Amino acid sequence: MKTRRFLGVTALTLLALVCLALSAQASGDPLPSWHDGAAKQAIISFVDKVTQQGGPGYVAPAERIATFDNDGTLWSEQPMYVQFFFALDRLKQLAPQHPEWKKSTAVRAALAGDLAKLAKMGHKGLLEIVGLTHAGLTSQQMQALAKAWLKTARNPKKDMLFVRMIYQPMLELLAYLRAHGFQTFIVSGGGVDFIRALSQHAYGIPPYQVIGSSLKSKFVVKEGKAEVVRLPKINSIDDGPGKPVNIALQIGRRPIMAVGNSDGDLAMLQYTASGPGPRLMMLVHHDDGAREFAYDRQSAVGRLDKALDQALRDGWTVISMKNDFAQVFPAQVK
Amino acid sequence: MKTRRFLGVTALTLLALVCLALSAQASGDPLPSWHDGAAKQAIISFVDKVTQQGGPGYVAPAERIATFDNDGTLWSEQPMYVQFFFALDRLKQLAPQHPEWKKSTAVRAALAGDLAKLAKMGHKGLLEIVGLTHAGLTSQQMQALAKAWLKTARNPKKDMLFVRMIYQPMLELLAYLRAHGFQTFIVSGGGVDFIRALSQHAYGIPPYQVIGSSLKSKFVVKEGKAEVVRLPKINSIDDGPGKPVNIALQIGRRPIMAVGNSDGDLAMLQYTASGPGPRLMMLVHHDDGAREFAYDRQSAVGRLDKALDQALRDGWTVISMKNDFAQVFPAQVK
Repeated sequence: MKTRRFLGVTALTLLALVCLALSAQASGDPLPSWHDGAAKQAIISFVDKVTQQGGPGYVAPAERIATFDNDGTLWSEQPMYVQFFFALDRLKQLAPQHPEWKKSTAVRAALAGDLAKLAKMGHKGLLEIVGLTHAGLTSQQMQALAKAWLKTARNPKKDMLFVRMIYQPMLELLAYLRAHGFQTFIVSGGGVDFIRALSQHAYGIPPYQVIGSSLKSKFVVKEGKAEVVRLPKINSIDDGPGKPVNIALQIGRRPIMAVGNSDGDLAMLQYTASGPGPRLMMLVHHDDGAREFAYDRQSAVGRLDKALDQALRDGWTVISMKNDFAQVFPAQVK
Repeated sequence: MKTRRFLGVTALTLLALVCLALSAQASGDPLPSWHDGAAKQAIISFVDKVTQQGGPGYVAPAERIATFDNDGTLWSEQPMYVQFFFALDRLKQLAPQHPEWKKSTAVRAALAGDLAKLAKMGHKGLLEIVGLTHAGLTSQQMQALAKAWLKTARNPKKDMLFVRMIYQPMLELLAYLRAHGFQTFIVSGGGVDFIRALSQHAYGIPPYQVIGSSLKSKFVVKEGKAEVVRLPKINSIDDGPGKPVNIALQIGRRPIMAVGNSDGDLAMLQYTASGPGPRLMMLVHHDDGAREFAYDRQSAVGRLDKALDQALRDGWTVISMKNDFAQVFPAQVK
């Protein structure tokens, strides 16, 4: 009798443990790489609010638009934007046949390795080099070149694959939002074709939800085959005020949530903040020199100054990489 | 006994009828407003081919991009683009306060009711008027104006609500494609804000899957509120070669299917046709003067001439409104 009761209790305990495990799995933490803290709490209570049907903050799925910057927000941007290293490799390869490219200030700075000068030119200088080195290619061809390059290219400061330096907490955030009916967009100062080379695979974001800086293009029919090829002329710089302008043009709705990390994202965050109902504006603050990089107000690449002031003043959420990210990079590359 | 058997047979017959009805509903015709014929067959076999996993024509869902023209393809465009009547109403309302607008050829033609001249100017003339009459508005404000106008505005030739003159077979086609993993896009010469006023509600297409002609915009912050307002300058004419150029810019993938109705869609169809694997290129031929309008090679609005030649030469699918559409307009407005 005693043994039986003992067994009975053991069986019950086991059952309880199994139930606990199952319920933990079911209601499991969707953001395990985020430390419990103000940033994680802000995300969860925002998503709860906009998805609670009948609640005062409810937002219909069609209006759940979240926009993310890319460089410095979804992956590392130091010591320079990843795309710069890609463009530089291509520039070195092709420049000998094109002495006329030396007319470009950006090209001269790049070939001289003058990162500071290039950083000052921002996305415009980068796009100028991309334009020269990719003119005549289709967006598919540009994506293919970038894809191949990203397979082996490494960050010179960290000696890690660039594609390894995507932020694990951001991958979880993107998936969490989509699981709650959000449409996630990238709105980046980087070149649109370059980002599209990795957006679907790395972030689960299809190419038509990527907005970026772009070159002008031309429709050509050659031997019965129709193509669209890029021209060495800038079409749009998707940075600063260019971000909300392109959001209004391509998305046609004001986001209810936006995430950035630099002054180049300020206009997008202001545009997001100016709508009615619940809003979530977030800034990644790079304050973790040990695990990633530490920079803000003085940095030439990804300067975070005015946007930080407004975030602090208006109560936007500042994500501290040091304190909010339990893990920075994924355990392995996808 | 006889009565009982009689009742038994009746019950069985009833049961059989119920089963038949249920099975018809379950495996029901997804395109009931299309007559059985070459066009319907082309659609169904194309969708079967690209969705058959392991089959030679299989296309992954992420690549199932279908682009649709709007005017004349999804709804009627005669005697003139719907947006023209909208812009004209607004022009008449605002012109008295703006004598300087008379500098514009398009404005003078519109105020004089010179449809022929306006039609010759195409989407450019229309967009010029839209720019003048909507400068300083946000895209949300433009959409709200168009939405309100569409509630009561009627086609002058047919005395039907414009929103009633959407093609029922196209609504079925859009839903059928989406049910098979396609992403459906509108790629129209019309103004993007105008189309977005109805795209979600009428076609089930969200604003970020609408590409159209557009005005330049400006980011402004007024009393702490950030907005993007339209300027009276043309940004992009999404017609002819502009269609594939904007597809490459905003979608970033070549469509595997495209549907249009005029020479303004030819470049989009050529671009679609030039990719590898299964492709479906379709043209709506307006040959039904009784139920809608009959026009093609000689029409100023929606001219179908060169595109028809290429369709016939290359075996693209020509949809005869008269013979392929069992029903043209929906029984009621959504």
